[in-house]
Amino acid sequence: MAEPWERMIAAVKDGDVRALAKLITYVENREAGWKDAMKVVYPLAGTSTVFGITGSPGAGKSTLTNAIARRLCDQGFSIGIIAVDPSSPFSGGALLGDRIRMRDISVDSRIFIRSMATRGVLGGLCQAARDVARILDASGKDVVIIETVGVGQDEIEVVRASEFVMLICFPGQGDSIQAIKAGTMEIADLFVVNKADREGADEMVEEIEAMLTLSGQEGVQTPQVMKTSSVTKEGLDDLVTFLRAFMQTKKRRDRERGLVREEILSLMEHEVSRMVRERLTQDGRLEHAIERILAQEVDPYTAVEEMLQKFSIPTPGL
Amino acid sequence: MAEPWERMIAAVKDGDVRALAKLITYVENREAGWKDAMKVVYPLAGTSTVFGITGSPGAGKSTLTNAIARRLCDQGFSIGIIAVDPSSPFSGGALLGDRIRMRDISVDSRIFIRSMATRGVLGGLCQAARDVARILDASGKDVVIIETVGVGQDEIEVVRASEFVMLICFPGQGDSIQAIKAGTMEIADLFVVNKADREGADEMVEEIEAMLTLSGQEGVQTPQVMKTSSVTKEGLDDLVTFLRAFMQTKKRRDRERGLVREEILSLMEHEVSRMVRERLTQDGRLEHAIERILAQEVDPYTAVEEMLQKFSIPTPGL
Repeated sequence: MAEPWERMIAAVKDGDVRALAKLITYVENREAGWKDAMKVVYPLAGTSTVFGITGSPGAGKSTLTNAIARRLCDQGFSIGIIAVDPSSPFSGGALLGDRIRMRDISVDSRIFIRSMATRGVLGGLCQAARDVARILDASGKDVVIIETVGVGQDEIEVVRASEFVMLICFPGQGDSIQAIKAGTMEIADLFVVNKADREGADEMVEEIEAMLTLSGQEGVQTPQVMKTSSVTKEGLDDLVTFLRAFMQTKKRRDRERGLVREEILSLMEHEVSRMVRERLTQDGRLEHAIERILAQEVDPYTAVEEMLQKFSIPTPGL
Repeated sequence: MAEPWERMIAAVKDGDVRALAKLITYVENREAGWKDAMKVVYPLAGTSTVFGITGSPGAGKSTLTNAIARRLCDQGFSIGIIAVDPSSPFSGGALLGDRIRMRDISVDSRIFIRSMATRGVLGGLCQAARDVARILDASGKDVVIIETVGVGQDEIEVVRASEFVMLICFPGQGDSIQAIKAGTMEIADLFVVNKADREGADEMVEEIEAMLTLSGQEGVQTPQVMKTSSVTKEGLDDLVTFLRAFMQTKKRRDRERGLVREEILSLMEHEVSRMVRERLTQDGRLEHAIERILAQEVDPYTAVEEMLQKFSIPTPGL
């Protein structure tokens, strides 16, 4: 008798969009057998190019993602979009509004859009994005775009599940250059100054280029800076041409190695945490430790140390 | 011969502010013996009240924190402030500017301010906040205020290291009520409508109260809604009076139990992750797994499963 995920994967192979959505939910929720499902999905994946798009709220990420997806689609590519929705109590509402703007492309059956919450994601946000990107890849999408807001450490780190990261800036963003310096150098493969119809776009491009030149390292290619506008459509074709060139020429084994390492450690840590949590809850040791801490018989640091001594980590060579 | 942390703790007990800063850094960086240091700090702590302040960027959190701290200080209390600085490449700059506004109180020796980065925090952001709050508590602070921006899941969850959470809103925040509904009910003990000198403050209070009434649960006290303004000083005294009442009457064992459970699991998971990571790196198994995945001999899910079989988790009762 086939497992539920076996039926879903078979249907996904037949192009069933609802089965695709169901399979993603199944894996995201870590339902029984999710790992077996991913073992089957994994070898089916590997042909997509995974792009990451990030930037501060208001940078126009959704609209740009929309424009890129439409153009690639018109050129014959199938697209999957993963929209990371911060379920922040504060920005949630506004970003949901944002999402609505993308509706006009979601009616196009060649573009599959999937929202992802940022809270309570089992197995971690970045791993969830990796799993979903892989499922979309296996379903036959040529391109997967992960769009995530550039606030909050987990939210930003999601783009690490992609092969190529675009950082979207815009004129009038405030302390933009200052802010960009703080920690984006290592994540951005391409800077996009969006809303280029606004005043200050050229200056922003110059500033970013100057910053990149100053902080450039020998042997490391300096990311390019491009300008786009959803109003005038300026730069959109150039951007898509640039992305297509990446799709054709990419050979980023070195980077993949880093991604693989990160994924193993992430999977491992979540799995071990889950096991430890389960075991401690089952055998009552957790409750016992809580009681002792509340009774002030022990501090949490010592309590954890004592519990850890019961977990054996084998020595090398065993 | 005394350990470095032993000398620091001794100095902190003597009121040495520089030693306090050094001890915090020592524990934050998980230097050798940090856990032993915390075991000594733990029983010294327990008299402070730890308040959490969160809200969207621009809500006036820093200014309000400043005002609360000054007033409590004038009433004879000593204060420690933990300012969680998102090192987001996008908002970093702006928030640093925010921080500068707090300088006028940091010259007051009775108020100790500590910034905390949100990226790369060893042991997790929330645990780091817990540790630092405990050190400030042990150093004799009557009140510890954890101020964190309400965007990003980790950044928001930091307030869970506090005993009482204030959610700062302001008129004109946009889809505010809608947004607040999304997931703050469980974290806010008090709603503060700040910038009450602006138009729409009263309407906002009413809306929040209506929302709280609608979603109220039997037996659970509905959080109060207060209005404040840093311009007119309206509501500041009332707010401080309210906080002092909490300090005097708090008996939140039930909540503490939840906090203790969360802390044990967090400490445990980070410790186990660290051990697993270390072990896998040391014995070359991680590199071996990476090679096999890159050579497409195995998928990451299977590789992790295989590695996990080498870690023994004892069965209950052992």
